[in-house]
Amino acid sequence: MVNSLKKQLAILGSTGSIGRQTLQVVRNLAGRFQVFGLTAGYNLELLSEQIAEFHPEYTFSRDNSNLITHNTKLLSPEEIACHPDVDLVVIATSGKAGLYATLAAIKAGKKVAIANKEPLVMAGEIIIREAQLSGAEIIPIDSEHSAIWQCLNGEPQPPQRIILTASGGPFRNYSQEQLLAVTAQQALKHPSWQMGKKVTIDSATMMNKGLEIMEAHWLFGVPLANIDVIIHPQSIIHSMVEFAGGSFKAQLSYPDMRLPIQYALTHPDRVSNPDLPELDWKKIKELTFEPPDYKKFPCLELTLKAAGTGGTAPSVLCAADEIAVELFMQASIKFTDIARLVELALQEHQSISHPTLDQILAADNWAREKTKENFKKAKTC
Amino acid sequence: MVNSLKKQLAILGSTGSIGRQTLQVVRNLAGRFQVFGLTAGYNLELLSEQIAEFHPEYTFSRDNSNLITHNTKLLSPEEIACHPDVDLVVIATSGKAGLYATLAAIKAGKKVAIANKEPLVMAGEIIIREAQLSGAEIIPIDSEHSAIWQCLNGEPQPPQRIILTASGGPFRNYSQEQLLAVTAQQALKHPSWQMGKKVTIDSATMMNKGLEIMEAHWLFGVPLANIDVIIHPQSIIHSMVEFAGGSFKAQLSYPDMRLPIQYALTHPDRVSNPDLPELDWKKIKELTFEPPDYKKFPCLELTLKAAGTGGTAPSVLCAADEIAVELFMQASIKFTDIARLVELALQEHQSISHPTLDQILAADNWAREKTKENFKKAKTC
Repeated sequence: MVNSLKKQLAILGSTGSIGRQTLQVVRNLAGRFQVFGLTAGYNLELLSEQIAEFHPEYTFSRDNSNLITHNTKLLSPEEIACHPDVDLVVIATSGKAGLYATLAAIKAGKKVAIANKEPLVMAGEIIIREAQLSGAEIIPIDSEHSAIWQCLNGEPQPPQRIILTASGGPFRNYSQEQLLAVTAQQALKHPSWQMGKKVTIDSATMMNKGLEIMEAHWLFGVPLANIDVIIHPQSIIHSMVEFAGGSFKAQLSYPDMRLPIQYALTHPDRVSNPDLPELDWKKIKELTFEPPDYKKFPCLELTLKAAGTGGTAPSVLCAADEIAVELFMQASIKFTDIARLVELALQEHQSISHPTLDQILAADNWAREKTKENFKKAKTC
Repeated sequence: MVNSLKKQLAILGSTGSIGRQTLQVVRNLAGRFQVFGLTAGYNLELLSEQIAEFHPEYTFSRDNSNLITHNTKLLSPEEIACHPDVDLVVIATSGKAGLYATLAAIKAGKKVAIANKEPLVMAGEIIIREAQLSGAEIIPIDSEHSAIWQCLNGEPQPPQRIILTASGGPFRNYSQEQLLAVTAQQALKHPSWQMGKKVTIDSATMMNKGLEIMEAHWLFGVPLANIDVIIHPQSIIHSMVEFAGGSFKAQLSYPDMRLPIQYALTHPDRVSNPDLPELDWKKIKELTFEPPDYKKFPCLELTLKAAGTGGTAPSVLCAADEIAVELFMQASIKFTDIARLVELALQEHQSISHPTLDQILAADNWAREKTKENFKKAKTC
């Protein structure tokens, strides 16, 4: 039964890294939340366990016929996302999977906490327009965007500049030659963050930071030219904003996704949670900064190009990257080929300005097929 | 004539470091402010120049008979501070000089921007109580407290912990022996900040940071035990706050007092000012941190003791320090004797809890006489 004193949560993508950590936070702050809906892909065993523990009203998977639902009713992610009883929808899916449900929640005027970058990168213009129409509140979960959002609390004006920090990933100090020999296993070992596989590889190529630039552009209405990236290997400062008059604000914490997740759930309140790590300033000796190396990490440059082109180009970037990362994880291509395949797709694409959702999804499909084709061509050469 | 579209400013202590910089900001943002009142001590020449440039309604000095007022009317600082036409009073005096005017402005429910630490350190309990009664808004100008205040914008809860940053002053890496030989000239060369003489010496002894702990305690209602000091030699992070849930926020900028002064004047707005320096993250390689050395800088420990005792003890600390710093500047005592004279005064004082203003001022007078006496005794030994 729906308990009206508790915030009703729908978690789309509950078996992924962000979904699982969201449920950890819910477990720690049990009195505040009731899980209304849980949806996942093919991890039926974990979803079933989550259903048994959290007793949601509704659930869904990509293989419902084999899902043990413990008598929980089935409802599609899109319908869960806009259900009248839902207070907050957590978009914890990855890739483009969350696009429809994100839009459904936003059109219904919900509070939507977004961890999934692709919906905003692919359809930022549409999402922001719909949110303005419906009054939906978009809450960032990504640590960088949560940092920016926290720094903007109570500020009547938008920031003048955003400084996105980046750990630099596991290959920050690798040479061009070393990068050629990088394996998926190496790329999956992030020096500071525990994240899902796709985003960990994207961090290693710095594609992830490029996607975050676009995300920040849409979320905070800051021109792309006023969003800078800076390498900060300790991952303590999660991003910074600069205001007119020369003052910066930064948000800091240990790199642990449960912090921004919890703040997304409890905002504007901040709630003690003994499970979350606290920075100990007696132990922190230095925070260091260096400019990113655009030559060694061409994905960053590619995202800036796609963002500058706009229209359907960012969707092509995302889709080509998704295929390229899959090929890299299967050891079918080299680490450095990821950028090459993405670049090829962008070169061959004719971007459509102010695209509809159908045009965005068509560009996505085109880029996937094109990238597979380009891979096969390169292989047979 | 009073222009109702412009904010009417009273600047008490306009010829000191903060006063002069406040007028620089006013000059840069000329359309926003009208200078209603200017008061100073004995720097009659500069005050007269300021009157000629800014045409205040009222002025005052400690030697009015020799002041060229350019036909500006005379009115005492206390009366200017609570004049019905004043919107914002800037307390830019030093030492206890600002105490009465601060209280007058606060009792009148004004916006009061405080750069002067002593009123809050000496009479924090009274000032905060009066502000709560009158609805006066206290705005910090001190860079550390401005940083904290900026980080608390839009946060519904008080911080869990405050981290006050300190440059460590010019003698951070001096040995105990080197400290014995320090001259006033050396102590007046602060590595990162341009400030008045008294506060520069207080920074060198770290007395200043101790006073800031007390100031932060009163301004933000945070228990003394939850206020930490950390040495950060680059003076880029001006302080930090920690919230429940493990998130920190920090405010950053180049060390330039005009930034917090301008924000105090324009708050909640932030206004572009091409004269103010902007941090360039391409040039910042590292921010470093280390714990303070309580043995080498006993003034920090003394302030914690005085703060813990409370009552009239902080006034005794301030007064003894003011006399000791004067003696040091006249080369009458060693750098390390400053702490010794303050400690002696504190040891000999019987603190009165929840003191009245008269009791606070009596303790101040007692400590001044006692410190002069202790100095003479030591000299004749």
